[in-house]
This record gives sequence, structure tokens and C-alpha cells, in this order.
Amino acid sequence: MTHWIDIPCQTLDHPAQDAATTRQSQLTKPPGALGQLETLAIQLASMQGTHLPEIRHPHITIFAADHGIAAEGVSAFPQAVTLEMVKNFSSGGAAISVLAQALQASLEIINLGTVEPQAAPIPGVTEARIAAGTANFIIAPAMTNAQLDLALEVGRDAIDRAANNGSNLFIGGEMGIANTTSAAALICALTGLKPSVIVGPGTGLDTDGVQHKATVVKRALDHHGDGHNPIELLARLGGFEIAALTGSYIRCAQRGITALVDGFITSAAALVAVKYKPDVLDWLLFSHASAEPGHARVLEALEAKPLINLGMRLGEGSGAASTLPLLNLACQLHNNMATFSEAGVSEKSD
Amino acid sequence: MTHWIDIPCQTLDHPAQDAATTRQSQLTKPPGALGQLETLAIQLASMQGTHLPEIRHPHITIFAADHGIAAEGVSAFPQAVTLEMVKNFSSGGAAISVLAQALQASLEIINLGTVEPQAAPIPGVTEARIAAGTANFIIAPAMTNAQLDLALEVGRDAIDRAANNGSNLFIGGEMGIANTTSAAALICALTGLKPSVIVGPGTGLDTDGVQHKATVVKRALDHHGDGHNPIELLARLGGFEIAALTGSYIRCAQRGITALVDGFITSAAALVAVKYKPDVLDWLLFSHASAEPGHARVLEALEAKPLINLGMRLGEGSGAASTLPLLNLACQLHNNMATFSEAGVSEKSD
Repeated sequence: MTHWIDIPCQTLDHPAQDAATTRQSQLTKPPGALGQLETLAIQLASMQGTHLPEIRHPHITIFAADHGIAAEGVSAFPQAVTLEMVKNFSSGGAAISVLAQALQASLEIINLGTVEPQAAPIPGVTEARIAAGTANFIIAPAMTNAQLDLALEVGRDAIDRAANNGSNLFIGGEMGIANTTSAAALICALTGLKPSVIVGPGTGLDTDGVQHKATVVKRALDHHGDGHNPIELLARLGGFEIAALTGSYIRCAQRGITALVDGFITSAAALVAVKYKPDVLDWLLFSHASAEPGHARVLEALEAKPLINLGMRLGEGSGAASTLPLLNLACQLHNNMATFSEAGVSEKSD
Repeated sequence: MTHWIDIPCQTLDHPAQDAATTRQSQLTKPPGALGQLETLAIQLASMQGTHLPEIRHPHITIFAADHGIAAEGVSAFPQAVTLEMVKNFSSGGAAISVLAQALQASLEIINLGTVEPQAAPIPGVTEARIAAGTANFIIAPAMTNAQLDLALEVGRDAIDRAANNGSNLFIGGEMGIANTTSAAALICALTGLKPSVIVGPGTGLDTDGVQHKATVVKRALDHHGDGHNPIELLARLGGFEIAALTGSYIRCAQRGITALVDGFITSAAALVAVKYKPDVLDWLLFSHASAEPGHARVLEALEAKPLINLGMRLGEGSGAASTLPLLNLACQLHNNMATFSEAGVSEKSD
């Protein structure tokens, strides 16, 4: 039986893309003068299959889970923070909660397995508990194949719900103490880059902390060895929330939904998806350059140019959400500006 | 009698800035994790004199005027386009019209002197006609001192109207065929940088066109000579719309209103203001890095780091308007996120 992740991706609509490109050349501005806002509108046109693209019902899902690798002392924050932040997402006090409200985006929070169990249901938080965090991947695979399947499906189902609600733009976010370590290990394994190049301070390690974290990643890579495919690496080195993100990006490509990728962790999940299934890349937009130093290398590996660089490094989908207005403006400029002939404006003289 | 431009600037509110800085350190995120969105909120707090800043009634004024230097063949577009675009601004088809509507910002259009006179009033366009464009500054000062005073006052009055309407954020835009030549000449004269470094393609000159434009700027600089103060240079090499922008930035600083500076032309106007009156810089935020190559040098001269770099080069205030949502989000994150104690989230362990 074919695994769902092997269902083919949708293809981009090239006639719509061409029509959008033509339209851009007719709008009352020097050709190219709106820079990436032009290419963005054209790219969205190719994804949406219309020369007049628009962002409809943007949907944000935050996947949260804990990481066994936290036992190695790789984070500046205690592991209890994962569940505490899940509560903060739901009560509206986290950055992504404020952004979702400001942007009128729907926000869904899914707990795939915090170490601390939810004593009682948390309003607005979906429980999809796989385990009390992953295993410590310095000594074992982070998760079993059955757990991996469950996590991928959580991502898939989030996209199916978003699609059924009429959304054409998805932002995935994550929360999980120690998940920059998991992301760094995945990136190293997928690209062959060294831990010293990819590992960074995460939520705020000092120099010694970063060095220790790089050593932990190196030991994990040595433990697991070479020759695994991207999905196997995801089980070995990933996290439940990272696997859910990978599943969500694959599903976006299968359903023809634009995924606006956030920062370091989400880019690692996107890299897994693209390495496994290159056509997924067609459906990804990269929102921002994270201050986490390894992010630039992941973006290079994906040949991606992010929209903004504000030195953000929070995760939670916050960088992606911050760029959502640019996507909206790109569409509105594209759709609502007058053409030279409509406005009676003279064109370039040459 | 003191000229109005010599009225002192407002001072920033350092206690409000300190209170905002403290608040940022208490919000539920690793310190610094929101990058420039944090510093932006703190900067706005210091301008607005409150630890909870917000953007109120953002106001956009487009200043339009023609340039005598266009006779030297320095633009890719015919001069008639200035008035044609004024009409396009007013009828809603221009980029800035679409952006103003999308952002719910008020938009004012002021015609300070197009070569083509307005045959009849254009709805939504204020006529403040000084002359049928400036003089060709390769052979004469662009404007008389009386004309300069009028243009500065148009900028001043736009800010006074915005302030009286409760606005605390101003975006100045411009339209004027050949005004990148005027801006380049001003920048060279103010910084001592060579025309070859500052002159660029503007609306789309080819390499020969850029070279010719640099020669024109060099001849103008030779003609006017050294030793003029910034305001004298503005009269000699500026444009009516550039002078109005300079007046508007000075007035923003005098009234305590944040000016969100757009691209190449507006930065030249800001440079005049700051070179004449350094305290104006406290009230300027720089929105985007223009694709016009000389812009980076102006930003350096102002020690300014723009928020975004999307390769835009349209003018009209379009780059600044595109970053307005980031200012709004910075304020909303700052004001509405929970603190660690409010949310019951554990702090960094060290």
C-alpha cells in the first residue's frame, strides 16, 4: 500500500503564472519597481491557479512536543516551559497568539506530547499525545516508526482541516524545549554540514553552551551513522512537532496550499520534506531569515530567499506570521492597481 | 525673525523608553527573540512618550512636482507622467493608493507644480502650485528662495494637518519625473560622494542612460560649487516635492511625530533635514532598502538600518507603506503579550 506521504504533489499552474506576469508588466509602475512584491504575487498566482491571487483564511497551527535530548542540557530553559507555553498560546499571551489575532488568522494548538501531561483539557488546545516527549536520540532513535506515522498524520490532518475551511495559506509553528538541537542534528544529517556550522544558541545559550550542544549533536550523528533516507532520519533525530511540520508541508503540496515557512526548526522540517519529495518546494514560501546562525545554511540548501530579516529567533510561527501582511499587500497591489491603459498613463519612452 | 525650520525639535522620552525596555524583558519569549520588532516598539515608545506605543491614524502625503533637469534626458519616462500619475493617485489605481486603502491610512496628494497645469481640479488633489516645475539646475538654481520657502511650508502644513487629525505616524511620498537626478545631486553635494557612486537607473535607464545622468549631475555640481549649507543646496539642486519632504521631516521632529522614510528620494530629503538639523534624525524610521543603488550610501550617511529589503524602487511612499504593518505588529506584540509572571511561564535557567 502506498504511504500517504507518497501521494504526488499538485503542480503549479503555469498559464496562471504567465497571465499574472503579463498583468504585472501592465500596472502603472516601472517594470520590476515593486521588487519581491511582484514575484510574490506571480508565485501565488501559480499556486492558486488564478491570475488574481488572494490570501484566503490564513491558518496557523502550532505543534508542541518535548524532546528527550533535553536531558543532555542543551537548552537555556527548563523543559516545563513547553507545556507552560502551550497554555500561554491558548490564553492569548504568546507572540503567535497576539499575531494571529492582529492578522485575523485562525490559530490551532496541538500538543503531541509534552513531558508534563495535561492535567485537564486546556481550552483551544488539541491533545494528540504520542508520548511524554521523544527518546534521547544520543542513545536511541527519537521515535518509533509507529510514532513517526502518528506525528506525520497530525500534520496532514491539520492541513486537511485548513483546506476544508477554505484556507489557501498555512503557517506552521512549533514549541518544544531543545528542538533547535533536534533540528540541527537533522540539518547536519541531511546536508552533510558540520554541527559547528549549524548549531547555535537557540533560546539563548552562551558560548560554552553552544559548544556543548554541538558536541551532543556530533555524538548523536556518530551514533546513528550514515545511509538513512530523510524520513528515517526524521524518526531517528526529529521531534514529534518537527515530524508533524514535515507532514504538514507534504500535505500542503498534495492539497495545493501555500506553506509560509517560519524559521530554523520549521525550515529543518521543510528540508526533510523537500529532500524526501523535491516537488514540495514548489509550495513553500520562506518568510524570514532567523537570527539562529544555521538557518542561513538551511535556506541555502533549499535555494530559498526569505522575505525579511529582522533578527527574529522565537519560533512559534512568529516570523512567518509577521510577513503575512506583505503577502496580502502583494496580492492587493497586483489585483487592484490600474494598468497603464486604464489610468491613461504614458509608458516608458524607448 | 527666526525661520520656522529653526524651531527646536522635540526630545525623546527616555523614561518611557526605559519602561518599554523593561517590559520587553518580561514578555514570554527569550530576551531579544523578536529582534527588530522589539527595538522598534521601544523606539516608538521613546517617541510617543508612553511605554505602550501604538500607531494612530497613519497619514500619507504624496508631494508631486516636475523638474527642469528632465530637459537633459535623464529619465526613462516622459515628463507628462508626473501629472498623469497624480491623477492615478487620486483615482485609486497607483501602488500607494492601493496600499493606503489596504492599510486604512489617510492619503493626501499635493501638486506643487507639474509642467502640465491641472486643467480642472482633480478630486482629492490639493493644488499648491509654485511653478511649472523647477528650473534646470545644470544652468541655474532649481528654485528661488521664495519658492523654497513655499515648498518647505507645504511640507510643514501637511504635518500640522496630520497632527491635528491625531496622527502619530507620517509617511511622505513623492512623484516627479527626473527626481532621482535631483536627489542624487543633493546626496553628492551633502556627502561628498561621487556621482558615479550615487547615480542609478531610477525608473529604468540603461547603462548609457545612467552614465549620461552621472555626467549631468557632475556638471551641475561643478556649476554650483562648494560651500553651501544644506538648505541652500536644496534650493540649488532640489525639487519642490523634495523640499516639501524636507519641510515635513523637520516639522515631524518639531511636533513629535514619527516619520517613516521611504526610499531614495525621501532619504535625500531626510538627509538635507538631518544635515541642517541633526536632531531630526531622532524622529525618523527607515522603512526599506531601495534597489536604487545609491540608497545604501544615503542610509550609511544617516547611520540608518532599514526594516526590509524587497528590491523595491517605486517611490510614492510605497516602500514605507509596505512596512507599516510591521510597526503595528511590533506595537501589538509589545502591548499585548503576557509577561512571564502573568502567564506562569518559567524563566531562563542560569
